[in-house]
Amino acid sequence: MRFARIQVNGRSGLALEKDGQLTGLFDDEAGSPGSLDALVARGPEAFHRAAESLKRGHAIDAKTVSYLPPFRGQKILCVGLNYVDHSKESGYALPDYPTVFARFATSLLGHKEAIVRPQSSVQLDFEGELVAVIGKRGHKIAEGEALGHVAGYSIFNDGSIRDFQHRTPQWTVGKNFDRTGGFGPTFVTADELPPGAVGLTLETKLNGETVQKASTSDMVFSVAKLVSILSQAMTLEPGDVFVTGTPSGVGAARKPPLWMKAGDVCTVSIDKLGVLENRIVDEVG
Amino acid sequence: MRFARIQVNGRSGLALEKDGQLTGLFDDEAGSPGSLDALVARGPEAFHRAAESLKRGHAIDAKTVSYLPPFRGQKILCVGLNYVDHSKESGYALPDYPTVFARFATSLLGHKEAIVRPQSSVQLDFEGELVAVIGKRGHKIAEGEALGHVAGYSIFNDGSIRDFQHRTPQWTVGKNFDRTGGFGPTFVTADELPPGAVGLTLETKLNGETVQKASTSDMVFSVAKLVSILSQAMTLEPGDVFVTGTPSGVGAARKPPLWMKAGDVCTVSIDKLGVLENRIVDEVG
Repeated sequence: MRFARIQVNGRSGLALEKDGQLTGLFDDEAGSPGSLDALVARGPEAFHRAAESLKRGHAIDAKTVSYLPPFRGQKILCVGLNYVDHSKESGYALPDYPTVFARFATSLLGHKEAIVRPQSSVQLDFEGELVAVIGKRGHKIAEGEALGHVAGYSIFNDGSIRDFQHRTPQWTVGKNFDRTGGFGPTFVTADELPPGAVGLTLETKLNGETVQKASTSDMVFSVAKLVSILSQAMTLEPGDVFVTGTPSGVGAARKPPLWMKAGDVCTVSIDKLGVLENRIVDEVG
Repeated sequence: MRFARIQVNGRSGLALEKDGQLTGLFDDEAGSPGSLDALVARGPEAFHRAAESLKRGHAIDAKTVSYLPPFRGQKILCVGLNYVDHSKESGYALPDYPTVFARFATSLLGHKEAIVRPQSSVQLDFEGELVAVIGKRGHKIAEGEALGHVAGYSIFNDGSIRDFQHRTPQWTVGKNFDRTGGFGPTFVTADELPPGAVGLTLETKLNGETVQKASTSDMVFSVAKLVSILSQAMTLEPGDVFVTGTPSGVGAARKPPLWMKAGDVCTVSIDKLGVLENRIVDEVG
C-alpha cells in the first residue's frame, strides 16, 4: 500500500495511490482514517482498513494536489556517515556505531513543495536518503526481530546548511532550518519492498544531472541494525522516523563546492518508492 | 502560577500549586484544562483560566502523587557548553554560537521518579539546568522581543551517558537513554520570575553534597539570546522546550570521575523554581 498525506485548498487528508491514481478522504469527512501518525499508532491492520476506506474516497488529481510530509515524527532520528564513501568524503573515520542527530517537524516539507535557502547562508546542500518508519513499539529489539518493527519506507532530501552545521560541535541547527527537509511523496508499506529495503538504487539529481547514486545495500548500518542498536538506548514508538544516511556525492565535498540555489530542481529517487522532487527558492525577507 | 503535571492511580491530570498546596483536576473530568502542552498552545490567557478551574479542583497530597514531566515538547532543544567554566572543563573552546542537541520525550521523567542507569554503561552523569518553555510562535525573533515568547520556566537534570555521548561525533544517543532526563517538579509562569530568569542560583547536589553551583546569569547565551538566535533558523512553537545548559562540576570532569549509581539521590534546585529530586536505579534486565 502507498499512502500520501495531501492538502487541497487548505483541507488536509489522506490518499491511497494505486496504479498511479490517487483516491482519498479529507480529515474532516466521515470515515476518514486521519493522519499517518494517528494511523500507525493503531497497528498494521489499520493500514488495511484505511486503504479500504480510501478506495471509496474521491479521485484526486495528483497534478494539482499539495503533498505534505507523510509523518511529523515524535522522533526524527537522522543517521550521519552511514555510507562508506560519504564518511570518507566528509573527513570522518568509518563509524563503529551510528552517528545520530535529530530533525524537528518544523524543518520538513512535502513532495513538490519548495526547499527554502535561508538569507543567512548560501551553503544549501542536498542529501538523498531512505526513510524507515517504526510501526511497533519496542525497546532492546534483537536484530532478527527489528524489521518486524518497521511499518514502511519513504524518501528524504536532508537539505543541509553546511556552515551552520559545522559552526559548533553539534550539527543540529544546520539540519533544522525551516523547510529544508524534503519528505515523500508517499509512505510505502514494508510488504511492497524487499526485507529491509535492501538492494534498491538511490539516485539524487540536481537539474537533471546525477549527483549521487548508490545501492541501499551499501549502508554501513542496515535498517535492521539501526533499529536494533538504537533501541538498546531508547524506546522506539510507532511513527518514529529513521532517516538512514546519504551516499557520497554531496555538494560540500566537491571542488569547487556545489550549492543549491533558487530555481534549481532536486530529485531523489529510490526503486519501488518513487521520486521526491523539490525546487529551491530563496527565503523571502 | 505554578503547574504540575500529575498522575494518581494511573489517571493523569493537572494541578495548581499555591502556598505549598496542590489542587487539581484529572484529564477525564469535566472542566479539565488537559495537558500543559495543550494549554500552552492556547496562549497566555489560557493559564489564568486553567488556574481558576484548578483552584476549584480536588486537594491533592503532594506526598503521594506522581509527578510527570511538565511538557512532552515537540522540540526539546538542549544547549551544550553554555557556561564558561563547564565549556573549559569539557575541553571545548568558548562558543560563539549555541551548541544544540536534541532530546526526545522517551528520555524524560518527572520529579521523584527514578533516573535509570542502563545495563550498558556505568558512566551516568548529572547536569543541573534551567528550562525555558516557548509560549508564542515565532520566527526570526529580535532579542528585545524574545522574552515575550517565553511562557515560563522549570528545572532539568540532563542525565548523560558519557561513553555513548562521545562514541560518535554527535551526542544524541548518550543524551537519549530512556528515563535519564529529570524534568520538573513544576512549570512556573514567567511573571513569577525576574525577566529571563537571570540572577537565580542553580545548585545540584548528589547525596546531599553540592556538586554544581552557579548563577543563571553566568550563561554564555541568555534565554533571550537563545530564543532569538535559534529562531533565526527555525520557527519556535508553543510548548517547545529549551534546556539551557549546565555549569561546571559535572562528574565526567572530576578526577577520578564521579558517576551516579543505584541508591544515589540527585537534586537540582533553582531559586523561585523549586527542587527537582530523582533517585537512581539500575535498569532491570
